[in-house]
Order: sequence, then structure tokens, then C-alpha cells
Amino acid sequence: MTGKWEKIDGHLATPAGFRIAASSAGIKKAASSLDLALIFSEAERTAAAAVFTINRAAAAPVVLSRANLKSTAGRARAIIANAGNANAATGNAGYKAATAIARGTARLLQIPAAQVLVASTGVIGVPLDFGCIQAALPALCSSLSANSGDEVARAIMTTDTYPKTCTLRAQIGGKPVHIAGVAKGAGMIHPRMATMLAFITTDILIAPRELQRALRLAAGASFNRITVDGDTSTNDTVFVLASGLSQVSAGRGSRAAKIFLEGLTMISVELARMIVRDGEGAKKLVTVGVRGARTAADADRAARAIANSLLVKTAVAGSDPNWGRILCAAGYSGARFDPSKTDICINRMDLCRRGMDTGFNEAEARREMDQSEVAIIVHLHAGKFSAALWTCDLTHGYITINASYRT
Amino acid sequence: MTGKWEKIDGHLATPAGFRIAASSAGIKKAASSLDLALIFSEAERTAAAAVFTINRAAAAPVVLSRANLKSTAGRARAIIANAGNANAATGNAGYKAATAIARGTARLLQIPAAQVLVASTGVIGVPLDFGCIQAALPALCSSLSANSGDEVARAIMTTDTYPKTCTLRAQIGGKPVHIAGVAKGAGMIHPRMATMLAFITTDILIAPRELQRALRLAAGASFNRITVDGDTSTNDTVFVLASGLSQVSAGRGSRAAKIFLEGLTMISVELARMIVRDGEGAKKLVTVGVRGARTAADADRAARAIANSLLVKTAVAGSDPNWGRILCAAGYSGARFDPSKTDICINRMDLCRRGMDTGFNEAEARREMDQSEVAIIVHLHAGKFSAALWTCDLTHGYITINASYRT
Repeated sequence: MTGKWEKIDGHLATPAGFRIAASSAGIKKAASSLDLALIFSEAERTAAAAVFTINRAAAAPVVLSRANLKSTAGRARAIIANAGNANAATGNAGYKAATAIARGTARLLQIPAAQVLVASTGVIGVPLDFGCIQAALPALCSSLSANSGDEVARAIMTTDTYPKTCTLRAQIGGKPVHIAGVAKGAGMIHPRMATMLAFITTDILIAPRELQRALRLAAGASFNRITVDGDTSTNDTVFVLASGLSQVSAGRGSRAAKIFLEGLTMISVELARMIVRDGEGAKKLVTVGVRGARTAADADRAARAIANSLLVKTAVAGSDPNWGRILCAAGYSGARFDPSKTDICINRMDLCRRGMDTGFNEAEARREMDQSEVAIIVHLHAGKFSAALWTCDLTHGYITINASYRT
Repeated sequence: MTGKWEKIDGHLATPAGFRIAASSAGIKKAASSLDLALIFSEAERTAAAAVFTINRAAAAPVVLSRANLKSTAGRARAIIANAGNANAATGNAGYKAATAIARGTARLLQIPAAQVLVASTGVIGVPLDFGCIQAALPALCSSLSANSGDEVARAIMTTDTYPKTCTLRAQIGGKPVHIAGVAKGAGMIHPRMATMLAFITTDILIAPRELQRALRLAAGASFNRITVDGDTSTNDTVFVLASGLSQVSAGRGSRAAKIFLEGLTMISVELARMIVRDGEGAKKLVTVGVRGARTAADADRAARAIANSLLVKTAVAGSDPNWGRILCAAGYSGARFDPSKTDICINRMDLCRRGMDTGFNEAEARREMDQSEVAIIVHLHAGKFSAALWTCDLTHGYITINASYRT
């Protein structure tokens, strides 16, 4: 089993050195809903890495966490996160709130404030009542344990319908290494990060710089390849903390580093797919695969246009094998190809060959599309590059949720 | 009134020299639905101009009409259009069908086949039964009259809920000049043309080259500034035919040319707004205005991101004054600005000032958003450029229509 990652039932806290906690601070409307989560590493030299939203209107916790990681050169020991309020578009007061939360957490955990990373998710533009968070911090810090992964996942949910966690274990050089992750998603999901948060912990021993490099690669193959509605949010954040307590060192270019990257990518893909599957109103997980493109950029363009097309996503919702909409989206994507050479299939069923209808059986095609996982594969026959993206169908549920989210 | 355009109740055929007709050829599922339209100019030297979809998977009629206009250097005397089938993704057979329809029409009208422009709209990827169109052509051609504007508008409808026509009249140099237009839209509407068709006729005397130049300018300010769902279709076409029979000559740089451009832009904006107002499932016409951008491109980027954001469009559907989503969309648009200096208002109500909530009255804001026309105005305070776009809200109706369009 050496070097091979296996999924285990378990907790976010499984990696050696981590303790976690969740509580109800009263930020979410529903009283007694979990809305505050804390992840703490006991290891003094914990390495930290992050990828953030590219939104220019980045939220206060994003601005603060980015600054903290820079000032500590990638050393952080705690993540404090709330749901129910994004602390975005909240001006100076919002930044002060994020800073106060980080300071309060640091004081209780007896670590420097710059080693606390902050994340928020929820409604934009409403001042964050950080008094109630401050009041909840002492009890939260004293309840830290290794057994509350599911609660932490629940505490960061907004319109998510289920908590998202995943834990991996592998043997490297005879020693066990763990990677655990928790995520939330739902709306505003787009390839360059979104209202999604993901917190990943591991006990591998790794330098901050190498951890950041691994995270960039893993995020590029997972969180940056999903889309629910094309909206890139103000708060998207992926944090990774590495305690080093497994005693397995992932030095640059080492075999352990390679195995770690595989595991980090695997857990990121798992969490990313969970986010899409639980997209607002989503009933189906859709994989869009584009093959035979002239360039990697063309493959990516075509896949993104298809995955973001409302007409494709509603057709999937209605199990309508309307491949014309797929060809049409590829057509306006900017990718260079000849429509009269293009093949399209859904799962294993050919719908379009050389740009024309195959005369497929409608009832069978509809049954294929009734599955909870639908693969749309487009072969452009223009070259040898390919790309894949994950998305979901667009249903009445999305409209219902988003036409009434705030009021 | 010289040089001033006024809207008149009337027909598409008002411009001197035009006769039109519509009939039911049996292409639409519903028997006896109008689905075939013909526009004919009696003037031998009729000038023609067009803008087409940029979709790489352009439909057969688009390919044929583009070739025809090129071969005649902008001279065409007829437009034959069908709804119910887009004749897109139909291979060589589709091109042959479009050619046969043009030839059949030309023979009956006794004009060269290259002077017939063809347009189709409807489902993609289904072979077009052009036999039924051929069979309907003789009766169609013999029923040409000056009084069937409304029927022509109906014959090109797909999921449109009402026919779209507009007629303008002005006095230029003491002589009356007319511009009449008919359009269809509904889904797949995006700034660079979409499932929309628009046919405009005028009796002004103008060279094809000048007509094409005027159409490009008018389309840039109208049809290319609307979006329903961000999907650019395979069939989008705007045709303009100018009979010259008003005897008013719009020579390059002349006052008449300037007045004509104003009228062409005005009718294009009217038709474009009708298309958006009747977007699939739409209940509201939304104008997105971005001001104070650093560059024209930045203004455009921000306006397009806001107008295409599903979260903004569902918030409008739910009359939710959730300005955070508007700021967020501007934030990921790529436009350079400082969110903490940004103002946002809906109609005349300030929701956000300098990036923060104004403490506005929720009930009042909701009432503003309950109007059938909603203006979202964003001031970036980063420069002096502005841009406007028209879109609609995203409702359950869109999902219902598009999850079941084909089957």
C-alpha cells in the first residue's frame, strides 16, 4: 500500500497535530445553527498555503489572510471561519472586524495574531457583528478536539445541502501520512474560486513554499475546473495547513513530495466534485470533456463555454439530448475547429457525428441523461489537446434559492 | 419635423417599394402556425447589408446569405425566412436546402438567386424539410402585399410571446423617408447576435457600402448590447434592404446620411429592447449602466459581467435589492476600480455608497425593483467612461422553457 492513497471514514482532524471545533455564534438567522469553525495545529512550525478569489472586491478576511501569510512567510497555526455573513463590501469596519477576530483567537490559543487565518462566507454588504463571534471564542477554543470534522463542515455551510469532508491516508516510507479536507460551496461557483471555502490539513512535513506550489497545482486541477453559475465570489479561499508531525518529509523533488501532490490533488478533486454536485438547485453532476482541440487553450475555451451555457445546463436538467446547444456553445467559445468534423456523445451514446445527427434513439438518450452523473464528450478532430470541467444542471431550484436568498 | 424620426403605427411594408407575405408551411409543430415569411423589394437597385452571428458553427442560411451578399456586392431584393427549424448543424444537406429555397424564391420573383437572402430560426441539428417550404412558395409569392407586417413578425417567432415590429418616418429635404423593422428573439440572446433575427426595410437611397457601415454602427449600439442568457446562436442575422424609392439620397457624409443613421439606430434599439423584454421567461427589462470607468473597455467589461450574472438576474427576478452581487460581478469583470469608492443605485435609489450599504429602506427598494423596468447604475469613480447594456431577469419561466424545448 506504500504511496497509494485510500479514502477513510473519519474526521477532518485525523492528521497528527490538529484539533478542531465548531459552535453557534448567532450569525446565521436560524438560532442554534452552527456558524463558527476553528482549526488549530499544535505544531509550532506548521506550514500554510492558500489560494484566494481573484475578485477585485475581495472580502476583508481574504485581504487579512493574504497579508498574514505574507508576513509570516507561510506559517499559520489556526483557521477561524464563520458562515452567515461574508464580511465583504463592509469597508474599514469589516477589516477591523476580521482583525479583531484573528486577535481574539490568537490570544486564546497563545499564538501570534499573524498566524491566524480568517475566512467568512454568506451575504455580502452587511456589517459583520463580530461582538457575537468574540463572545463565542472562549468556549470554542476550549472545546477543541480531534472529533468534530462533521460539525466543522456544517458550520461553514450556507445554501449547501450536506457537509463536505474527505480524508485520505497513505504509507510513505513505512509511516502513515494523512490529508483531511472540508469544503463548502453552492452558489457563485466558478473556476477561479467562488463562494467556496476549503480547508485542508495534513501531517506531512513540508516547507511553506513547496506547500504553496503543490496547492497551486492541485487547485488548478480541481477547484479551478468547476462552475455552478459563472460568478466568482468575493470570498473564495482554499487553505492548507501542514503540521509535519507524520515525520515524513516532502522535500522538493522527493518521492514523498510527488505522492503528497497526488493526494492533495485527489482530495481537492473530491471536494470540488462535492461542491458541484451540491450546486444550488443541482440534481446532476456534469463532466464536460473536450478532446481533439488544436491547443490546450482551445480545449479549455470550448469546455468552459459548454459548461457555462445556460441552454446546455437547462437541457441537462430536462434530460433533453439537445446536442445542437453543445455544438453551438463550442462554436462561440473562440476555439478553432470545423463543426462539420465534430463528434458529440453523452455518456457512451453518440448523438452527433461529423456535425450531424446520428439518428440516435431519443428514449435511450433521455435515459442516459436521467443519470445522476452525465458526461458530455466533444471531439473536435482539430488536434490532440483535451480539457475537462465539472458543472451541474440548472434547475428551478437555483432560481428559487437565488431569487429569495437575502430578503 | 424635418430630420426628426417619429414612430408610426403601421406595417413593415411602409417603406416605398416593399411588399411582404407570410404563410404556414408546416415546419412548426403546431399546424396552421405561421412559419414562413417573405420580404420583397420592387426596386431593381435595392441595397442590402447584414450582420451575422460570429458563431463558428454558423447555420447554412448564414453561410449562404453571406456568400450571396458578397457575390452581388450588396444588392439583394428578397428575404425568405422560416421559423421552427434553424437549419444549423445539418451538413451539406442543410446548405443544399438553403440554396434550393433561395432558387425557388428567385424563380417565382423573377430575380437572380444570389439576390435572395435566407434566414432560419428554431431547433438546431434537425434536417430541414425544404419540400414543404418549396410547396408553400408559389402561394406565398402571389400573396405579397403592403399590409402583412404583423403576420411576418409572427411567422419568424419561436418562443417569443409577441410579434416585434417598429416603423419610423421622417421628412428629409421635404420628402418622406421610412424605416420599418421586424425582429424575433427569446433565447440564446447575447451581445454578438443570437437566435435573434431582425429584418429592416427602408426607402432611402443609399449605396450598399454606406448601408453596411450604418448597420454596423447601429447594431453596435443596439443588438450587440443586449443579453438574455449569454449564448451566441448559430443563426443570428440582421438584414437591411434599402429600395431608394423615397428619392432621398444618403450620400456619404451628407445630412441625410446622418439622419438615416439616427433612424436606423433608433429602430435597432427599439427592436433590441423588445427582444430583451420578451427574453425567455423574462418579466423585467433591466438596463445596466456603468459610469466613471477608467477606459471604455473597463466600462463595457463591468456592464457585461453584471448583465450576465445569474445571481444579479435572479435577484432582479425576486426584487431583492442585493447590491453585493452587483459589486461582486463588477469585481470579477476585469475592470480596474476601487470597490471602496463605488456607488450603486437601482432606479433613483442609492443602495451602496463608497462600497458600503447606505442603510436604505428595504421595502422601498423592493418596490423600485418590482417595476417592469429596472435600471442598475454603478459608478466606479475611476475615470470618465461609461457603458450601457440591456438584459432581463432570470426566472422559473426560463428554466421551464429550456428544460423542455425540444422533446
